[in-house]
Amino acid sequence: MNRRIEKLLAKAPRFMLIHDPANMYYLSGFTGDNGVLVLGENRRALITDSRYTAQGEKECPGFEVIDYKNAPMLSVAAGMTGAASCGFEADSISLKTYRDICAYIKNPAETHGLVEELRLIKDENEIKAIRKACLLADEAAAWLKNRIVPGIGEKELAAELEYHMKMQGAEGEAFPGIIAAGENAAFPHHAPEDRIIKEGDMVKCDFGCIKDRYCSDITRTFFIGEPSAEFAKIYGIVLEAQQRAIEAVKPGIPGKDIDSVAREFIAGAGYGDRFGHGLGHGLGLSVHDSPAFSPSSDLVLQPGIVATVEPGIYIPGRGGIRIEDDILVTENGCEILTHADK
Amino acid sequence: MNRRIEKLLAKAPRFMLIHDPANMYYLSGFTGDNGVLVLGENRRALITDSRYTAQGEKECPGFEVIDYKNAPMLSVAAGMTGAASCGFEADSISLKTYRDICAYIKNPAETHGLVEELRLIKDENEIKAIRKACLLADEAAAWLKNRIVPGIGEKELAAELEYHMKMQGAEGEAFPGIIAAGENAAFPHHAPEDRIIKEGDMVKCDFGCIKDRYCSDITRTFFIGEPSAEFAKIYGIVLEAQQRAIEAVKPGIPGKDIDSVAREFIAGAGYGDRFGHGLGHGLGLSVHDSPAFSPSSDLVLQPGIVATVEPGIYIPGRGGIRIEDDILVTENGCEILTHADK
Repeated sequence: MNRRIEKLLAKAPRFMLIHDPANMYYLSGFTGDNGVLVLGENRRALITDSRYTAQGEKECPGFEVIDYKNAPMLSVAAGMTGAASCGFEADSISLKTYRDICAYIKNPAETHGLVEELRLIKDENEIKAIRKACLLADEAAAWLKNRIVPGIGEKELAAELEYHMKMQGAEGEAFPGIIAAGENAAFPHHAPEDRIIKEGDMVKCDFGCIKDRYCSDITRTFFIGEPSAEFAKIYGIVLEAQQRAIEAVKPGIPGKDIDSVAREFIAGAGYGDRFGHGLGHGLGLSVHDSPAFSPSSDLVLQPGIVATVEPGIYIPGRGGIRIEDDILVTENGCEILTHADK
Repeated sequence: MNRRIEKLLAKAPRFMLIHDPANMYYLSGFTGDNGVLVLGENRRALITDSRYTAQGEKECPGFEVIDYKNAPMLSVAAGMTGAASCGFEADSISLKTYRDICAYIKNPAETHGLVEELRLIKDENEIKAIRKACLLADEAAAWLKNRIVPGIGEKELAAELEYHMKMQGAEGEAFPGIIAAGENAAFPHHAPEDRIIKEGDMVKCDFGCIKDRYCSDITRTFFIGEPSAEFAKIYGIVLEAQQRAIEAVKPGIPGKDIDSVAREFIAGAGYGDRFGHGLGHGLGLSVHDSPAFSPSSDLVLQPGIVATVEPGIYIPGRGGIRIEDDILVTENGCEILTHADK
């Protein structure tokens, strides 16, 4: 983590305040959800409330842990005498925190996405954690395939799936699972309802879990019985769009070009207006770690980036198909991290 | 909801922007998590992104629903021509939203807790929802009592409890459940671990659920086998502290006086330094709806306030006892809403 802090300070003002919980964890190992890190060349401090000081001492070796009582920024300012300027994370703080910073800190300087930029490239330990999360997602997809039977409700299945992943060792869901049957599959982000799954339904299942604090994210669309000719065809188009996009992934390529590969293939098949969302997103400590594959993504791929590839085609009133896997960009291309049957 | 909006506008600037999702739901019925309400004497608008426009039309009768594309504040400003001033919720917005407001809105005026103040007093429908959530919590507590057996782990039990509540009809947990066995019970907010529950343990279980969007929150501490003489005594003290506090609840009394009743009783029994947190908090659309019973609470009780009463005594390294119920302040006193065995 010291290496990470050094990298950050090379790009940041002399002192840096970190408020975002995932960024705090990334730089210090602190798992509490309240506090601020103060980072400087010769300064490593975690300022938090009394609930978390003992935990901070344990989790953040090398850090001074300070109980902020009721004035976090006063504590920060007291520990920064002489600092000429101090950066803060403008994208993730509240108006209240901003006011506190301005009241106590001399020359506050806005920064944007500095830690997020570091987090983009995963190191060996991070990749190990993501692999574990993907393995759990694969296992859950296999379990789901047998568990989706006519008569079970979307909500019931979503609750069972969460419970199952936790029992297999997941720390939790990466996000509330999507179980969308039949016509509900036409909504890309459907929230599970009381709808009962029945013979002839397609069931779109988008879920993921957290393991060692890192996320996985997978989508499989199952058919209960035989698919209609139309949706069998759509399934094939989505699958080929995904394969083509994955084959195009390699370092140096802009994310939007990968998006185009899938988007143009789907458009060529006549469903261009039925694929409204981006092709994929970065994955890591959060489930939407960074923009990755979308028509507007400026990201240029580099080894160590982990992202989802998830094209979909949605037909209002009738249903929808999405297939999603997680990939790791390598030196020459990419490695697929999820392997559940399609 | 029109009545709620009228009440709000009676206290607010001529126009009011609402960003907080729970406040948006309270005033409009909108259940999406992104958007802004524009409220004025002759203006009801929901400005949200394309994912939520159809949903907004359905959920918010009487509101104009506007797709904000990529400029929510531009859309707001365009619809407010002639507004002399416009209030915004300073406590719940990000720095980015604040900047957007300042860029587009003439004379923005900070407001603090206006909607939260209205939400403090529950109406009939809200109380009905909270009663349902409490009934589910009671049922889960009864289920838990039989399910806590030597050999089961804290994490496993927490996952089962969540699944069980969802199967009984809960929309979800009100917060991640706390299952704390033996020495772990000494931490007021322990996160479930792999620790296995064994004969002789006390197990502190703090959980709640969401039903019709409203929360319940309950704590029961169980003994596996016979409690030690010390913790049997502590259990009695906590229970009596809670009963005394509940008996003291009635309209016109400051929340801090209710806190004092429990706090002084616990201090008199010799455990004053072992009860560190507040006695209770408001409950409603969020699980910490408002400060209610704490040494610093300025709240004066009124009929329709719903709150928790949850004294505890925690002995580092050995364990802790907390007992929590939810109450509704009535004209003459209060009604206890949770009834699980103690």
